[in-house]
Amino acid sequence: MRPFSSRSELFDGVLARGAAGGATGDEAWLAALLRTEAALARAQAAVGLMPAGVAATIEDACAQLKPDVATLSADAAASGNPVVPLVAALRRAVPPDVAESVHKAATSQDIMDTAAMLVTRDALAAILADARGAAAAAAALARTYRDSPMPARTLLRQAVPTTFGLKAAGWMLALDEAGSRVAAVRATRLAVQFGGPAGTLGGLDGHGLAVLARLARELGLAEPVLPWHTDRTRIADIASALGGLAGVCAKVGRDITLLAQDEVAEVAEGSPGGSSSMVHKRNPVAAVSAIAAAMRAPGLVASLLAAMAHEHERAAGAWHAEWLPLRDLLVTTGSAAAWLQIGLAELTVDAAMMQSHVDDLADRLGATVDTGESAALVDRALAIHEAAL
Amino acid sequence: MRPFSSRSELFDGVLARGAAGGATGDEAWLAALLRTEAALARAQAAVGLMPAGVAATIEDACAQLKPDVATLSADAAASGNPVVPLVAALRRAVPPDVAESVHKAATSQDIMDTAAMLVTRDALAAILADARGAAAAAAALARTYRDSPMPARTLLRQAVPTTFGLKAAGWMLALDEAGSRVAAVRATRLAVQFGGPAGTLGGLDGHGLAVLARLARELGLAEPVLPWHTDRTRIADIASALGGLAGVCAKVGRDITLLAQDEVAEVAEGSPGGSSSMVHKRNPVAAVSAIAAAMRAPGLVASLLAAMAHEHERAAGAWHAEWLPLRDLLVTTGSAAAWLQIGLAELTVDAAMMQSHVDDLADRLGATVDTGESAALVDRALAIHEAAL
Amino acid sequence: MRPFSSRSELFDGVLARGAAGGATGDEAWLAALLRTEAALARAQAAVGLMPAGVAATIEDACAQLKPDVATLSADAAASGNPVVPLVAALRRAVPPDVAESVHKAATSQDIMDTAAMLVTRDALAAILADARGAAAAAAALARTYRDSPMPARTLLRQAVPTTFGLKAAGWMLALDEAGSRVAAVRATRLAVQFGGPAGTLGGLDGHGLAVLARLARELGLAEPVLPWHTDRTRIADIASALGGLAGVCAKVGRDITLLAQDEVAEVAEGSPGGSSSMVHKRNPVAAVSAIAAAMRAPGLVASLLAAMAHEHERAAGAWHAEWLPLRDLLVTTGSAAAWLQIGLAELTVDAAMMQSHVDDLADRLGATVDTGESAALVDRALAIHEAAL
Amino acid sequence: MRPFSSRSELFDGVLARGAAGGATGDEAWLAALLRTEAALARAQAAVGLMPAGVAATIEDACAQLKPDVATLSADAAASGNPVVPLVAALRRAVPPDVAESVHKAATSQDIMDTAAMLVTRDALAAILADARGAAAAAAALARTYRDSPMPARTLLRQAVPTTFGLKAAGWMLALDEAGSRVAAVRATRLAVQFGGPAGTLGGLDGHGLAVLARLARELGLAEPVLPWHTDRTRIADIASALGGLAGVCAKVGRDITLLAQDEVAEVAEGSPGGSSSMVHKRNPVAAVSAIAAAMRAPGLVASLLAAMAHEHERAAGAWHAEWLPLRDLLVTTGSAAAWLQIGLAELTVDAAMMQSHVDDLADRLGATVDTGESAALVDRALAIHEAAL
Repeated sequence: MRPFSSRSELFDGVLARGAAGGATGDEAWLAALLRTEAALARAQAAVGLMPAGVAATIEDACAQLKPDVATLSADAAASGNPVVPLVAALRRAVPPDVAESVHKAATSQDIMDTAAMLVTRDALAAILADARGAAAAAAALARTYRDSPMPARTLLRQAVPTTFGLKAAGWMLALDEAGSRVAAVRATRLAVQFGGPAGTLGGLDGHGLAVLARLARELGLAEPVLPWHTDRTRIADIASALGGLAGVCAKVGRDITLLAQDEVAEVAEGSPGGSSSMVHKRNPVAAVSAIAAAMRAPGLVASLLAAMAHEHERAAGAWHAEWLPLRDLLVTTGSAAAWLQIGLAELTVDAAMMQSHVDDLADRLGATVDTGESAALVDRALAIHEAAL
Repeated sequence: MRPFSSRSELFDGVLARGAAGGATGDEAWLAALLRTEAALARAQAAVGLMPAGVAATIEDACAQLKPDVATLSADAAASGNPVVPLVAALRRAVPPDVAESVHKAATSQDIMDTAAMLVTRDALAAILADARGAAAAAAALARTYRDSPMPARTLLRQAVPTTFGLKAAGWMLALDEAGSRVAAVRATRLAVQFGGPAGTLGGLDGHGLAVLARLARELGLAEPVLPWHTDRTRIADIASALGGLAGVCAKVGRDITLLAQDEVAEVAEGSPGGSSSMVHKRNPVAAVSAIAAAMRAPGLVASLLAAMAHEHERAAGAWHAEWLPLRDLLVTTGSAAAWLQIGLAELTVDAAMMQSHVDDLADRLGATVDTGESAALVDRALAIHEAAL
Repeated sequence: MRPFSSRSELFDGVLARGAAGGATGDEAWLAALLRTEAALARAQAAVGLMPAGVAATIEDACAQLKPDVATLSADAAASGNPVVPLVAALRRAVPPDVAESVHKAATSQDIMDTAAMLVTRDALAAILADARGAAAAAAALARTYRDSPMPARTLLRQAVPTTFGLKAAGWMLALDEAGSRVAAVRATRLAVQFGGPAGTLGGLDGHGLAVLARLARELGLAEPVLPWHTDRTRIADIASALGGLAGVCAKVGRDITLLAQDEVAEVAEGSPGGSSSMVHKRNPVAAVSAIAAAMRAPGLVASLLAAMAHEHERAAGAWHAEWLPLRDLLVTTGSAAAWLQIGLAELTVDAAMMQSHVDDLADRLGATVDTGESAALVDRALAIHEAAL
Repeated sequence: MRPFSSRSELFDGVLARGAAGGATGDEAWLAALLRTEAALARAQAAVGLMPAGVAATIEDACAQLKPDVATLSADAAASGNPVVPLVAALRRAVPPDVAESVHKAATSQDIMDTAAMLVTRDALAAILADARGAAAAAAALARTYRDSPMPARTLLRQAVPTTFGLKAAGWMLALDEAGSRVAAVRATRLAVQFGGPAGTLGGLDGHGLAVLARLARELGLAEPVLPWHTDRTRIADIASALGGLAGVCAKVGRDITLLAQDEVAEVAEGSPGGSSSMVHKRNPVAAVSAIAAAMRAPGLVASLLAAMAHEHERAAGAWHAEWLPLRDLLVTTGSAAAWLQIGLAELTVDAAMMQSHVDDLADRLGATVDTGESAALVDRALAIHEAAL
């Protein structure tokens, strides 16, 4: 019997919602790798290291090359990364006298890390769009239910009154704050990688720094002070920002599932999920899926942080160890945000039920329903939210 | 522009070596899901809950059904898991009067968890084969170099003499011990899941326990005392055993990379990897790839342990959160073992260099080279290893 | 201003309940270190490596020595571990001609690892006692409420009926299974460490293996096949077993907090906690504290697994990195088990409320309350539980 | 026999170096809790919620109170946190008519979270001082060895030449970047917590927002837009920043241990550690201890991120689960930075050995020693470093 393929997409409908999956898949990676090689040639031509025509030939080859992923992946095993066979393919695709100008003075990690940043930039854009959509949905809830009292619950016990508006404003603000950190990392920490085998910009006739600057401009990435082959603070920053956003998605998802319990019934999802065995079930599938996706994040962040101890000028394992956790973290955080956006946008709120619960609570406390300064808090949170748009 | 596909196999040549990838891919999962539905029908027929002919019809449908993964994955989003659309497809594939006997009295998680155990069983077999191959290669090194002195190194400083045989015996024993834990989990902890929506074996006219026992026998899985929908100690045991084996792979890989340094040069890999920029490089690619794969494990184990708090009778997120980390952990531990098997089997040892280093060390210490009882230790470790085969 | 002390016990009342804290504190560690040095002398005398009188003198010194922890801790910084200054103190405490027999042919890690196993053995005993107490309390609930119907809840929505007896039996079985793994690790995987600086049993005139065996017998620990200085599968096994038990505690604690919600009100804690601001609050403090303690575990397990890649014959950091996570994991898992034992033993169950909820559910489903084979499941789980006592 | 105390300081000399331990110990925590209660009274008096004299009485009581930690810790078990017994003690310490103004309209978490921010602020100051010291030491190395060639090493194999100056500049820049993130979090994300039991600022006659603002000013903490009882993005930001810094410490420590190998011998520590058994050993204890401390961080970060899903208005476990991981993360990152500062400041560099290695490498490559633009890279990194001072 032929062996099964290792392709794994069966769970993606549930666990890889949103555009981050596509932004980090093989096609996106290959496009980013080739785009980097092309930009490198262009940058080197710009500073006089090769004729413009040679760079154009390389750029054409990068645009035309359609490498077979399976072959590339298999060939990568020999050297430890896919850039080695990709460069070989590119060199075969250009005239012999151009071949040596392909990947000139670069090391595999220059291309891989730069491509990772391009891929991450697109994935973060997708994630941010969904996170902002979720925040906007929460903002709408905060506005609509600004004055709708409900019981605050602490340690899962009813405490004293709050409003659903304030709860939703809290969701919104947490999404905004976590999202703004993701946006800041995207804007400032995604840098081009270029240093050559030893990170010294050797073999470039003293034009290395110029190439570095030009390459950054070509690709719209930040220019690093030094090559960062074994300084992985950028990866840590990306990972951490995603971990924070995932944590917020888990929090909001958890709240939704708790409010959607039959016994609480203060909210319901607009498109609840069915069951293979129980026709009556109305499962909060969006929130559940958001939680599931978000729960993968802390372990992935830990993997990326634990992989920061890159040896010398190129790690003996820790660099390769980043590739899949980074992808997985982008995809799963994106899925959490995408599901949450749906869950919040379609949320059905039963303000009467909330009112009834809070009235019962007030009766038990022998007090009137006092929601303190919740309205003013909602207003100031919404003002901050709107100012940031 | 059409969006990129989320397919991700570019790094599998480096990071998903071995057979665990295929054993846990979509095809394997679908086969396991359908095999479980078929076995369930057979078990129910065996205890008289449906005519044998009905079970045979279902079994045929399970054998014939070739569901499209992309469609199934997309449809799974509505309910939160792929069993719901798969059961719908099966019901469409059988005559109307058989349809209600498909998935009878089962819940999605019965099928998913049982299939996960089938998939895990095959993946663990693949992983164990490679781990045992690696241990056998280490045993061969221990035998060959039983009396070859080399410096022991503590805190990365030369300490006093040891032998390469004892070092290799230590690798072997660690692989054996971690492997035996994986084997024990495989033999005893992979249980069928069956309880129905509430885990009460309802809707089976009192034949539930009989179905449970029969289903276990049909699939060669253990029979649990109770349905374990929200008792995830089995998942924790699988995860932990894999985490332990991955840790051993990381240790051995680390030692190989350290011994393969130019400045130490006591070992070299048989098929060292090249570089995209440096023709002279001889990188220990197998050890590096083993390390990289192994480094993913602790975070994945943490994700699975952190997901143990399943609510009530079915978790609101924590169950779905297991699927990908479990797969990833199987694949990455398998990759670590497979790479290590290659690295050890092809390892080139320079016993003369070791001797020269240990002679220098003895000179500095003003002592003779005394390797204590290392030979006796090697012998007893090999005896244990061979007895376990 | 003098600097603050780093002593940290303020949160121990909440987060370090049970006897594992004491079993792993400084006093316990010092006692274990000194007990190991004493046993080593005794074992060496037994095989003729020193006169019995010398060993007795060392043993006396070990019994008398009352080292100051702060001094020892500070002095440990110079060498990297507390055994170096402890051995120095011991040597000062014996006659000069005995001094060289102290710690003879041992390395610091021999003493530290053996002491860690002694400390772990006591801590695991404490943890197991509380875990078994919790399981016994769950068993009592399973017996009492064997036939008390309540709604099963899946994805936090009411599904179909189950019984509280079955739920409690599930808690019991999970505690039993996780506990039995802890017990198995305690019984089989706690081994003496002895190998000397290079792990070769050098400097013992060929009596090394005999000393190893004797030392194991003296301390009641397992005799390892080889010194395991850099084979950390034993640490991984301890960590994993604790991680599994902590995960079960988190699951049961979560269920209790969910059932104790005002809106569900099917259980209450016997000694609920108050609030600094709300007199009416009845917080499920035991369950909350169990959850809090258990949530620390996955990260600690990950730290211990990630630290398995010990270099060569003594790690350059990874060994030291184990000490506090191992202690923390013992203490926090012990705290989770101790709190859970209290929470379950004192749990107040409102079977009438459960019945009322399940009647409402049956009404909505238009069905009678059918709890399937839950009673038979409870019976078989209890039989297994009782057989294991 | 009386039970052992759970006090645990034996490993602090090795694993809790630096001032973060004291800044986060019981004394510091108690001082911060009392300072918060005092500031709350002052802030409430400032907006007219109580007479200035009442606030002054409370402030005096806070200054005078010397609670016994063991009692407080034990009493905290009843309610789940130490603020409840601390407030009770404060109320006993003031005249009866003042008692009700103590902790007015506050909830335990207001006080605990605010105190945690005060404690964190001091600990981060200590950590930053050591991180900056380490960066300064690396800068000095970069300056001194700006033009000292050595082999770059990739995958632990010699690649092509670099300089030690560039390597040290890379260490410096990574420390600077990770440190600047810690500093940014310290400056902007440490906020006062105040919202009362439901986070609505209830019971303050409409002066709640004014109290919030005033309390922030009193304590020099940021004023949050909303109470953040269950929005834990601030905790995630602190954790992530520390995780990044710890990762850099691990990287630099790893490099030092690798360069300090006997076979490489390009650096040595100024105060190497001894061995309990080998007089000749010169262990790189500072680097080893930095690595050990840093290795604890990723698991702790994961614990804090995994604890972000706080339920509703106060978590049922996840909040309590933060306390010890946050402390441990501060202490261990501080220890890593403190050890690294020592290791770098006292590092002995053997530039002749580096030169000899790089000459050998050049010979093997048949090339001259070309270090590319390493000097220019060092210069620009130093310029950035100095500009930031």
